[in-house]
Amino acid sequence: MQRAKKKIMEFKATNIAEFLHGTVEGDENVSVNNVSKIEDGKTGTLAFLANPKYERYIYETEASIVLVRKDFEPEHEVKATLIRVDDPYEAFASLLELYEQARQMKSGIEQPSFIDDSATVGESVYFGAFAYLGANSSLGNNVKIYPQTYIGSGVIIGNNTIIYAGAKIYDGTVIGDNCIIHAGAVIGSDGFGFAPMADGSYKKIPQVGNVILEDDVEIGANTTIDCSTMGSTVIRKGAKLDNLIQIAHNCEVGENTVMAALVGIAGSTKVGKNCMFGGQVGIAGHLTVGDNVKIGAMAGVSNSIKAGRTVLGAPAMDHDKALKTYVVYRRLPQMREQLLALQKEVEELKSKLNEE
Amino acid sequence: MQRAKKKIMEFKATNIAEFLHGTVEGDENVSVNNVSKIEDGKTGTLAFLANPKYERYIYETEASIVLVRKDFEPEHEVKATLIRVDDPYEAFASLLELYEQARQMKSGIEQPSFIDDSATVGESVYFGAFAYLGANSSLGNNVKIYPQTYIGSGVIIGNNTIIYAGAKIYDGTVIGDNCIIHAGAVIGSDGFGFAPMADGSYKKIPQVGNVILEDDVEIGANTTIDCSTMGSTVIRKGAKLDNLIQIAHNCEVGENTVMAALVGIAGSTKVGKNCMFGGQVGIAGHLTVGDNVKIGAMAGVSNSIKAGRTVLGAPAMDHDKALKTYVVYRRLPQMREQLLALQKEVEELKSKLNEE
Amino acid sequence: MQRAKKKIMEFKATNIAEFLHGTVEGDENVSVNNVSKIEDGKTGTLAFLANPKYERYIYETEASIVLVRKDFEPEHEVKATLIRVDDPYEAFASLLELYEQARQMKSGIEQPSFIDDSATVGESVYFGAFAYLGANSSLGNNVKIYPQTYIGSGVIIGNNTIIYAGAKIYDGTVIGDNCIIHAGAVIGSDGFGFAPMADGSYKKIPQVGNVILEDDVEIGANTTIDCSTMGSTVIRKGAKLDNLIQIAHNCEVGENTVMAALVGIAGSTKVGKNCMFGGQVGIAGHLTVGDNVKIGAMAGVSNSIKAGRTVLGAPAMDHDKALKTYVVYRRLPQMREQLLALQKEVEELKSKLNEE
Repeated sequence: MQRAKKKIMEFKATNIAEFLHGTVEGDENVSVNNVSKIEDGKTGTLAFLANPKYERYIYETEASIVLVRKDFEPEHEVKATLIRVDDPYEAFASLLELYEQARQMKSGIEQPSFIDDSATVGESVYFGAFAYLGANSSLGNNVKIYPQTYIGSGVIIGNNTIIYAGAKIYDGTVIGDNCIIHAGAVIGSDGFGFAPMADGSYKKIPQVGNVILEDDVEIGANTTIDCSTMGSTVIRKGAKLDNLIQIAHNCEVGENTVMAALVGIAGSTKVGKNCMFGGQVGIAGHLTVGDNVKIGAMAGVSNSIKAGRTVLGAPAMDHDKALKTYVVYRRLPQMREQLLALQKEVEELKSKLNEE
Repeated sequence: MQRAKKKIMEFKATNIAEFLHGTVEGDENVSVNNVSKIEDGKTGTLAFLANPKYERYIYETEASIVLVRKDFEPEHEVKATLIRVDDPYEAFASLLELYEQARQMKSGIEQPSFIDDSATVGESVYFGAFAYLGANSSLGNNVKIYPQTYIGSGVIIGNNTIIYAGAKIYDGTVIGDNCIIHAGAVIGSDGFGFAPMADGSYKKIPQVGNVILEDDVEIGANTTIDCSTMGSTVIRKGAKLDNLIQIAHNCEVGENTVMAALVGIAGSTKVGKNCMFGGQVGIAGHLTVGDNVKIGAMAGVSNSIKAGRTVLGAPAMDHDKALKTYVVYRRLPQMREQLLALQKEVEELKSKLNEE
Repeated sequence: MQRAKKKIMEFKATNIAEFLHGTVEGDENVSVNNVSKIEDGKTGTLAFLANPKYERYIYETEASIVLVRKDFEPEHEVKATLIRVDDPYEAFASLLELYEQARQMKSGIEQPSFIDDSATVGESVYFGAFAYLGANSSLGNNVKIYPQTYIGSGVIIGNNTIIYAGAKIYDGTVIGDNCIIHAGAVIGSDGFGFAPMADGSYKKIPQVGNVILEDDVEIGANTTIDCSTMGSTVIRKGAKLDNLIQIAHNCEVGENTVMAALVGIAGSTKVGKNCMFGGQVGIAGHLTVGDNVKIGAMAGVSNSIKAGRTVLGAPAMDHDKALKTYVVYRRLPQMREQLLALQKEVEELKSKLNEE
């Protein structure tokens, strides 16, 4: 197989130094098309040296350019071109943001695509090929809709929001500003609601609500968020959901709450703000999880949790108790042996006492 | 961000009353475009009051129209327009169904779309833009295929079935009448079958079977159902699968069985009818789960389960035993202390006895 | 509902016998369009009899053709046409491979599709309708890209690789030869990286790395693999990932490692080669899992694992210890009763001793 990564963008040392208000030391014309960690640096990449602990790597790195502190004095020869700046870490971070913005410069309507006559589209929008925008839907300014995205009817999408390829947005969904929705995510699918019939079959309960994503929300790849039975399933401002997460109907996820992949939250559960959930956590329906709650990976939550608590395990327990319980759990075989030994000893004591 | 939900459909109080054979009390011309719970009612929505416990909300609700019992006598002033009917809950449910049907009135072939010359399409079909229908496949009457759906070759789809945007149906799949498949679901992907080679690598075992979904099946968003190695993976009539579920090759899911999100069922396992599985349940391969079995969320099942049992936990245990075990599990640290205290006491008894 | 599977390909007994260098016994003109197990055989299918244990089925099977050993002597009348070959199992396997190849004979560029002017496409490529190939991307020879697949910019795809409908490949991904990527899989979505701000909100950390899939990798339906923050998330040669798996940023999965569905691996974890993971396993971030490690379904791994170990359970323990612990766990209620009984007995002993 071919391994070389195509050069999408190339930057020269002089241009980078100019952007960072830094000074070049070495080959001014060397160019890079990617970034790397200094310890993994390869030709054609730019790395940085901020922590003195990593200094030894600068003498070995294959990176073509390294950002260093203004007063850095190498003890050995350095092959890479150096760019001297005030704060190499911050300079590196600002380059990453620049790179990210450059990646996102796409605009225009690619063809073929489908935009309903009654839909409205803001300024500087990118609308990829094979994307679909349904009746009465609207896109804000600077929105980027990647190819093959589906946006149903009556959907409202705010400014600067990015929806990656093939995400599916059902009718009536409302999405705020500055959101990012990754490929394959499904927003607004029917809640899982069925009424049992006398013959054992189920009758579908119409799910006529919608999903609201407030501003600054990020939704991971192939994550699914069901619409509410009535009213709205709501993901509040700044919440970040990783890949392959299930949020059931009528749920609410609070501001700035983050969840790792494969979490499942059952219907009508309300999660507070600033919570952190590990991967594969499961939460039963109709519960309340308070603000600032932390839930360890794979925990199974079947009761509401008060604000500020940290829980672990399935069934979930308070952090300290859970750790103590694990310690004993891991010793269960020995504990059983101790118990059996003790039973024997008590038997012996009893017979000894009866003999007397 | 904008919050207003676009008005897709609007209905006047007089029209609703006529449809429900009810009588209007208040503004006949007020109109609604959505429904709400009476306790959350907003202007422009319709709510209902069936349970007398909720009566106090009718005096506060912002809902524009409320369905009430014929003989309802308000104790205070009511702002909303009332529609008096025999059974407010049933009337509300029939309105929801009407709304749902209206949502689904789409028909016609949107362009561009791809229908192979050898494929056949029934009457009153909706076939969305960028959808694909492969060779020798057929769609029944009133089928709705949303945009960007993929239907491979030799696929048969019955009458009235709805497939939402971007679902992917592999070659040879058979889908019954009145099924609903949500966005991003994948039906008929290769089973996970590999023969280990002497050098540690794996050789793919061709998966030449298919998937059969019988009538009235609902499949959730981003759920995956693998085709059989030979023969068919079968989802029986009326089964309902939530989002992000994995059904492996050669499995069978019985009639009217329901599964919550993120369940995983390994290859060749047969699940009976009228079962209920909570979220994130895992079932090992080559097992048999009898009819009417209930499995609690996150349970891990590694043995077959007889009809009618309810199991919990990982490893899964019978419901009553599991609950008793949890009680002790949660007390493990105290239990260990009790054991250590007892050991000490027995030691003391022994030395006391020896002293005598 | 209709049940009949469409006849996509039909083969006559004479043609099959010729291909297998076998001899026909019975109706030479009978034709089949599918395969079956001898015990489930239906008219129009071909089965095989290799294991003498299954001989009784050959007298009942509805299969139209059965492959049998050259020297097979039926004890009763056989309805099916027989084809006598040296090794019925091998002959059957070679037929399956032929069938699989025939299924994959598609080639050509379907319209409408989107291929950027700067992209390059190898020989004998199939590129389905509504598929998208971005700037500077390249496809090797004999590649098959199914409809509605998204391939971003700067993506490199080797020879003979198959990408099924609607998979999404982000910018900069590198995919080797002979890979198979199933429908709905997302390769290269942003890693889940956010820096906490003083006000409780999160700032996105740009994820500028990519994903590399080496040769012979298979990725299941709706599985997600995030790109690296910098550098590459790598899936090594011959690894096989089932459906709905999450591989986070900066991970590495070793050669010929296989994982069942719904596994989640957190960021920066390195998994060795020839490992086997059961379904729904969770592995925390920044760990190392050695070569030849086996992890049982639903295990929760929070510590690194040395090469060759087998672990089970959450929290994960060595196989033997876990099994012993389960035995005691299942007896916890009795154990508690034994402990309480023992406490009582010791109390009695103590008072007896004090009485004396």
